[in-house]
Amino acid sequence: MIWYKEQIDDDIVVSTRIRLARNISGLPFPRVMNAEQKQKAVSTVRDAVIGGNSTLASMFDFTDINALSDMHKQSLIEEHIISPELAEKEGGALLRSNDGTMSIMLMEEDCIRLQIIRGGLCLDEAWETADKVDDVIEESVEYAFDSEFGYLTSCPTNTGTGLRASVMMHLPALVMAGNISKVISSAGRLGIAVRGLYGEGSKSYGNLYQFSNQVTMGNSEKEIIDKLKNIVNQIVSLEKQTRESIKKNNGEELEDKLWRSYGTLKFARKISSSEAKTLLSDVMIGKNMGIINTGASLTELMVMSEPAHIAESAGKQLTSAERDKKRAQMLRENI
Amino acid sequence: MIWYKEQIDDDIVVSTRIRLARNISGLPFPRVMNAEQKQKAVSTVRDAVIGGNSTLASMFDFTDINALSDMHKQSLIEEHIISPELAEKEGGALLRSNDGTMSIMLMEEDCIRLQIIRGGLCLDEAWETADKVDDVIEESVEYAFDSEFGYLTSCPTNTGTGLRASVMMHLPALVMAGNISKVISSAGRLGIAVRGLYGEGSKSYGNLYQFSNQVTMGNSEKEIIDKLKNIVNQIVSLEKQTRESIKKNNGEELEDKLWRSYGTLKFARKISSSEAKTLLSDVMIGKNMGIINTGASLTELMVMSEPAHIAESAGKQLTSAERDKKRAQMLRENI
Repeated sequence: MIWYKEQIDDDIVVSTRIRLARNISGLPFPRVMNAEQKQKAVSTVRDAVIGGNSTLASMFDFTDINALSDMHKQSLIEEHIISPELAEKEGGALLRSNDGTMSIMLMEEDCIRLQIIRGGLCLDEAWETADKVDDVIEESVEYAFDSEFGYLTSCPTNTGTGLRASVMMHLPALVMAGNISKVISSAGRLGIAVRGLYGEGSKSYGNLYQFSNQVTMGNSEKEIIDKLKNIVNQIVSLEKQTRESIKKNNGEELEDKLWRSYGTLKFARKISSSEAKTLLSDVMIGKNMGIINTGASLTELMVMSEPAHIAESAGKQLTSAERDKKRAQMLRENI
Repeated sequence: MIWYKEQIDDDIVVSTRIRLARNISGLPFPRVMNAEQKQKAVSTVRDAVIGGNSTLASMFDFTDINALSDMHKQSLIEEHIISPELAEKEGGALLRSNDGTMSIMLMEEDCIRLQIIRGGLCLDEAWETADKVDDVIEESVEYAFDSEFGYLTSCPTNTGTGLRASVMMHLPALVMAGNISKVISSAGRLGIAVRGLYGEGSKSYGNLYQFSNQVTMGNSEKEIIDKLKNIVNQIVSLEKQTRESIKKNNGEELEDKLWRSYGTLKFARKISSSEAKTLLSDVMIGKNMGIINTGASLTELMVMSEPAHIAESAGKQLTSAERDKKRAQMLRENI
């Protein structure tokens, strides 16, 4: 099931992502490929995944990115299935599993960007799946590999394992307590990069932060994953402690704030994308802490409230003001 | 029925009040009376209203103000049945009709302060009622009256007719459009005093304004009432026009704002007295304009959300924080 529908709202960890970057031996990196080389690379990988000999054949569908509407591309970006870069690339393609958990971007920065994305914290399981799919592809495709450097990639920051392991965390209490920047800089010193999911710069809406390994070389995949897991677990504890402390010292103020956000979601007639994240984050912490009892899938509503998803549900392009109305309606009906 | 339960939320005029100030011939004004004189004055008026010969006898109850708890006195002030001044006075008393529409304060600034208070705009009817009650009292009590000045009162601003006619108006659109101070100063030039009902200085919560005649002498009661009625009707038109114009130019923003207030009333866990007024005013305009369909009596909820009413419903004195919680609960249950 696609990550945001897994209904793991009661977890501090919203989702786990494993990404492997691979290139094809004997072919240049996509940015310097000509059209013919791109076609060849795409068909090579496509055949490896959905060709007659592949054990994955029945699980994946192939999509030519340039054949998709802008709205559909944007919607895939909002679901983290493709990157904004792929949407822009000439000759880009996507192999995607029917259950939505696995996707392979072709001709993005690297020839192959294999991604496993799942709800909750499941780094080991996601890594195992990625490793298996990688093995299937490798049966038919010779990867660009160097015995000293490991897997070769377009950008040296991915060279080595080609592995980027990421965990998306919902950290409202650390944000409320003003401790999030301390957490981010501590993680940075330990080799973990952190970025807010929504919003730009230091301003993040929805209190969602993505933690991922900075270094891909010099450690094994298992070491990279264990280190990230270790740090994530520490941050989970810290968030939990902070929630308890807020509950103890400002419980009534917190309860009031969270219920007000629920009331706004339930009745407002215009809600911007950034406000939706903030309100949904409040309801999510309320649900986590047993304050607000709702069956709504809040992570899913965060994705559904993104601009292209709103436009898709309306079946047409909308102005920003029209989207705000449509978004408020969707949230009212689903919260 | 007591004014705020009349459910006239769909009117711009919330309530009408007629007040007559009278004193007793041969007795000084209350502020210079001794205890014995006060007792005599009280029993004279009490007998006139509920004595054996009075046609009003079965309609009124007598209450010694000093026998009431502070909470109860405060609650009567919040319902505009007595004034804050009466609550403080030694020897003060109250005659109140069973239906809550008529009250007579004894030994306030003047010996007799007769008040008729009703929901909606009904200056003529309220004046007729006041005039009848006044006549009944006058059958047994000789009023302090001067052929040149008219009825004599403790403060010269009431001398003459002793009449203060007041109308409470809900003017959210004029406030939103930034035109309320213009309305207030225009009314002032026409001899009409205006004050915000809740809040101090120029800051008024709940957009409720009381309009009343400044001058009590030199005009007949009918002239005073007709002038006030005329000005009130002009302001009603102005408020209606402004509502239409806001609806036309900013209808969606307005709708969103009003529904958000409804959502806050429906879900918040702590609401201050002033915020309650603001939110209820929003829902009231929403109900008036056909945007929000609610059976709740919003004027009643404004009174019920006042501090002493909250304490009374809890049956004990509460801290401000406790009241905010209790108020939010009461509003959630009744909105």
